[in-house]
Amino acid sequence: MTLHPSPAHEAGSGAAHCQEGPTARPVEPGRGRRRGVGLGEVSLRPGFWQTRQAVNAAATLRHCYDWMDRLGWLENFDRVAEGRTGGPRPGWQFSDSEVYKLMEALAWEHGRSGDRAALALFEELTARIGRAQDEDGYLNSCFGHEGQPGRYTDLSLGHELYCTGYLLQAGVAALRVMGEVPLVGIARRAADQVCQAFGPGGIEGVCGHPEIEVALVEFGRATGQERYIDQARRFIDRRGHGLLTPPSLLGPSYFQDDLPIREADVWWGHAVRALYLAAGAVDVAVELGDDDLLAAVERQWDRTVERRTYLTGGMGSRHQDEGFGDDWELPPDRAYCETCAGVASVMVAWRLYLATGEVRYADLMERTFFNVLATSPSADGRAFFYANPLQQRVEGGPVGDGAVACDRVNSRAEGANRAPWFEVSCCPTNVARTLAAWQTYSASVEGEELALLQYTACQIRASLAGDLVFGLEVATGYPVDGRVVITVTEAPDRPVGLRLRVPSWARGASLTDGGEEARALAPGWAVVRRVFRAGDRLVLDLPVAPRLTWPDPRIDAVRGCLAVERGPVVLCAESVDLPAGVSLDEVLVDPAVPPADEGEGAVLAARVLPVPEAVAGALPYGSQAPSATRPAGSGQPFSLRLVPYHSWARRGLSAMRIFLPVAGEG
Amino acid sequence: MTLHPSPAHEAGSGAAHCQEGPTARPVEPGRGRRRGVGLGEVSLRPGFWQTRQAVNAAATLRHCYDWMDRLGWLENFDRVAEGRTGGPRPGWQFSDSEVYKLMEALAWEHGRSGDRAALALFEELTARIGRAQDEDGYLNSCFGHEGQPGRYTDLSLGHELYCTGYLLQAGVAALRVMGEVPLVGIARRAADQVCQAFGPGGIEGVCGHPEIEVALVEFGRATGQERYIDQARRFIDRRGHGLLTPPSLLGPSYFQDDLPIREADVWWGHAVRALYLAAGAVDVAVELGDDDLLAAVERQWDRTVERRTYLTGGMGSRHQDEGFGDDWELPPDRAYCETCAGVASVMVAWRLYLATGEVRYADLMERTFFNVLATSPSADGRAFFYANPLQQRVEGGPVGDGAVACDRVNSRAEGANRAPWFEVSCCPTNVARTLAAWQTYSASVEGEELALLQYTACQIRASLAGDLVFGLEVATGYPVDGRVVITVTEAPDRPVGLRLRVPSWARGASLTDGGEEARALAPGWAVVRRVFRAGDRLVLDLPVAPRLTWPDPRIDAVRGCLAVERGPVVLCAESVDLPAGVSLDEVLVDPAVPPADEGEGAVLAARVLPVPEAVAGALPYGSQAPSATRPAGSGQPFSLRLVPYHSWARRGLSAMRIFLPVAGEG
Repeated sequence: MTLHPSPAHEAGSGAAHCQEGPTARPVEPGRGRRRGVGLGEVSLRPGFWQTRQAVNAAATLRHCYDWMDRLGWLENFDRVAEGRTGGPRPGWQFSDSEVYKLMEALAWEHGRSGDRAALALFEELTARIGRAQDEDGYLNSCFGHEGQPGRYTDLSLGHELYCTGYLLQAGVAALRVMGEVPLVGIARRAADQVCQAFGPGGIEGVCGHPEIEVALVEFGRATGQERYIDQARRFIDRRGHGLLTPPSLLGPSYFQDDLPIREADVWWGHAVRALYLAAGAVDVAVELGDDDLLAAVERQWDRTVERRTYLTGGMGSRHQDEGFGDDWELPPDRAYCETCAGVASVMVAWRLYLATGEVRYADLMERTFFNVLATSPSADGRAFFYANPLQQRVEGGPVGDGAVACDRVNSRAEGANRAPWFEVSCCPTNVARTLAAWQTYSASVEGEELALLQYTACQIRASLAGDLVFGLEVATGYPVDGRVVITVTEAPDRPVGLRLRVPSWARGASLTDGGEEARALAPGWAVVRRVFRAGDRLVLDLPVAPRLTWPDPRIDAVRGCLAVERGPVVLCAESVDLPAGVSLDEVLVDPAVPPADEGEGAVLAARVLPVPEAVAGALPYGSQAPSATRPAGSGQPFSLRLVPYHSWARRGLSAMRIFLPVAGEG
Repeated sequence: MTLHPSPAHEAGSGAAHCQEGPTARPVEPGRGRRRGVGLGEVSLRPGFWQTRQAVNAAATLRHCYDWMDRLGWLENFDRVAEGRTGGPRPGWQFSDSEVYKLMEALAWEHGRSGDRAALALFEELTARIGRAQDEDGYLNSCFGHEGQPGRYTDLSLGHELYCTGYLLQAGVAALRVMGEVPLVGIARRAADQVCQAFGPGGIEGVCGHPEIEVALVEFGRATGQERYIDQARRFIDRRGHGLLTPPSLLGPSYFQDDLPIREADVWWGHAVRALYLAAGAVDVAVELGDDDLLAAVERQWDRTVERRTYLTGGMGSRHQDEGFGDDWELPPDRAYCETCAGVASVMVAWRLYLATGEVRYADLMERTFFNVLATSPSADGRAFFYANPLQQRVEGGPVGDGAVACDRVNSRAEGANRAPWFEVSCCPTNVARTLAAWQTYSASVEGEELALLQYTACQIRASLAGDLVFGLEVATGYPVDGRVVITVTEAPDRPVGLRLRVPSWARGASLTDGGEEARALAPGWAVVRRVFRAGDRLVLDLPVAPRLTWPDPRIDAVRGCLAVERGPVVLCAESVDLPAGVSLDEVLVDPAVPPADEGEGAVLAARVLPVPEAVAGALPYGSQAPSATRPAGSGQPFSLRLVPYHSWARRGLSAMRIFLPVAGEG
């Protein structure tokens, strides 16, 4: 096994606040066809993603810190440092991980923007957690100290290695952004302790929640130490053999411990666990040249996307076990689609894209970015969806629950309102760390070619092979507007490539290169290879007008329904937009009338669904076929407004649905 | 408040083995329009229910005992008696309740059949639990002793009062069947301890799992002590005011503690909890003449049946929280429909029927008996479904789980195979106690009238008002056959009434009274009032031929589908009956061809659903409407066999579905 020296070191430093320079980024495979761009190679300009990144920086990071401070999750580290363990400890056993995820987000944010406040918070947290580290490198506020359960006594549910994994990820971000700051040493000692405890001759175990695998590989890449990658491989290889202890009522499937990952054809069990494990497996496969393992994850991705993935890109069909369902089990109302599973799906797809260069991975990332990642946070960045269902029947959740109060922890991953924090609060910090480094997923470099994967207003100054620099300015109102104007700002004096992703949903896309006639583009890649000059202008036109989308007939839960998408954005109907007296349970749309384009959304021709006459106490099943009780064209017609799904519940509580019943479609 | 003397005492004793005589039965309201028949007033003859009752007696009762013995749930009582508490205790905190439910079943079984083995087991268990009772009457093997949490320190999840409730129910059965046997004294002391601890000046609390309410009322009825009913009223009144402590992550909705039962319009939260609470509320309302409370439960029943109940009568749409869903949230695949919720629904409907005499309650009981209660146990009575979904996509459950081994505890309420026992094993004993007394729900008496509610081969000798005796022999192959032949065996020498339930599903029923011409019957009641003579013969013809049933169009999850029912029995398709190469995910039925009647089931005209061509890694959503890709009449035709839902998975593992997609129905 050979570890490539980090490309960042070749590229040299550009931004003063970033140790590795502009190419610092979360994922740096030692092999694979492409590299992602660095934090400093792309700067977002006002637009969809810049708004979200700015809100993340200005509000979310501090919001997360404040909640963890308020709830005592930070003080848990002080308790260890001061020998005050044994009493009641606030937070779940995995609350340390939230602190580390916030630290990772702070590091990327500092790397991206040079923000001093983010740095100060990062340094404060470093000092605080550093004091809690044991002599031998073990660092956990819930296990292993006076009055606590012993180290690694509950690998099934203790989440110790999971927490350590996030610590390593924060260490990776710190090392790449700031160099050998104290957190890196803390992470190194923690990683060494894991290798010592779980390496050859150590515990033959795995962690109930994968994360250490992906983290160890990246830490190995960042530090150039192969032993961390070896340890990740051990964890990947051990899993699926029922080694997890103690046995949990949740059963081995929940933990993906019933089948080795190499043998599986699809993802199953707890969705975030399955996806984190897959991301780690891709990393191990790439570093070790293990093509079988890589092929296994590609196969699982295909089958899962084909049969277990929502229109939003969301994964996880069940609240129970936060899990994947069976093939075709994709209920819109009880879709779990955990925000973290969206983040995890991006982690997997990004790694597969870098390994293979295949466009479909970037396609799914776009879908997930716009319809899961963008859906979770509120506009002010201080409240979040944990689950992202595709239908909400009741305005405001279950009986008696009402709205989630804005200043209260939401104990459950339910409800029609974004909540400021959760008892299990994995999602806010996962959103934060992803948004802080969002642009690193927007483009990639392969040799002397730059690929644009995600379209948003930005400036790019990317290093191609051979120290060639390629600079672009991208101007676009995407996704509201489908026109993407790319102006070359800097280019080598020789031919280089510009590769543009044409999304899989785009029918009728076109590219105009300078004064040439527009050429039609099929979904996939459009590649321009020539000598570019500063001032050259390319215009990509993507057809974002609203379009009807139909589910596979095997998805029982949305049979006889359609959805409307607009560009990469899934639309939805919200009860706040309905005419008075019309219920979202009683809407029927007419697919013969094309949807009208309206702002970010659309308008559909709809009718009020005729429903059977109510008979007190009668079951909702009868001897009359719907077509008999609901003749074509019956029901009061009205115009149904659709808005982006990512913005639902921003105008107050509402019922919502993405899939809309259609007359005469079974 | 006046407690009526038990009608059983009026009627005098018939069966030697039954203290209260033939009229002993589980529910004896002090008010209300009708009384249920007693255990000894109806004897089942070979047929659908007699088979199940006999298997229950011969196999299930001992099966339950053996599992609880094997798992140490019985020994838990010995530990308390012998001062050996404090070490590990097998079973959940509510495992005592299973012992009591088995004791109740044993008491009814002994009362019904005079079975000595049941009595011996009952007496052994009485001795065993009696030794564990504390001086002051408190009896629980999990709380309140050396090394255990203190009494009533976890009302939310401790289940202490829930366990006591089942003890009282066993006490009721014992008292009515055997008189003042030792268990009655044990139950009396336990009930007194509850009144002392939770009565005026005591703990202002409720139990997280209702059951004590319904049990205290029945214990009050059986013993003639009003104070138990008063205590039940206190629990009913306290609930819904957030008194439950300590707060649980499950939230107050789960426990129905967020809204007083008088104020609710529908059931919500954990289904079994909601239904047990409702049963207790009806009992309190009936005993105290609280018409508002009774009306509240009737209203909730109506709305729940109209919008939150499955075609099978099953209740509970969510695995998460084992809970009711929102209105119209009735997914077939993820239907929880816990067996215990079916039992609980019968408890509520029976009490409402006795209070009001309305036929719709008996209608739902029939549906639930045939499609939930009869579905759970295996033919040999030694394995059970916990959840009763209406669709199973995969033969044998999730990846890696395979079949549930026949001799292993199933830790989860999942899977496509009946399991012998569960970690949380509430269902087997609930089935057992219900089957042991099944005939008491089959008929009722009001004044000089006998009502037949459930049809099965049986002999009836019922006491009407004024010591009149009415004897009938019912001969029928119902539900396979729709003809019910009723022969009078004994009748008073004056006019009495015979009331027959005509099920709500029956279109074209008729009644022939002796040599008269058959008269057509509408669903509801058919009443014959005249002087009957021994040998008189009435023939009720119920149209059990297979019929198509369509869901309300607001039930999203089964849009574009139909189901087939045959009499009271819901049918289903099982993958074992499909032609080779056809998947149950790809079946389309033709409603224009009437279903053919075949044995217990039916045969439908079906076609193989054309599905979109697979594209590796493509999402299952596209731009083509199903009607475009699936022209009417396309797909290979075949005959689809349907079998009774209650018998599914009896021929081995299978995929299964009740709702079948229909071409051209949205």
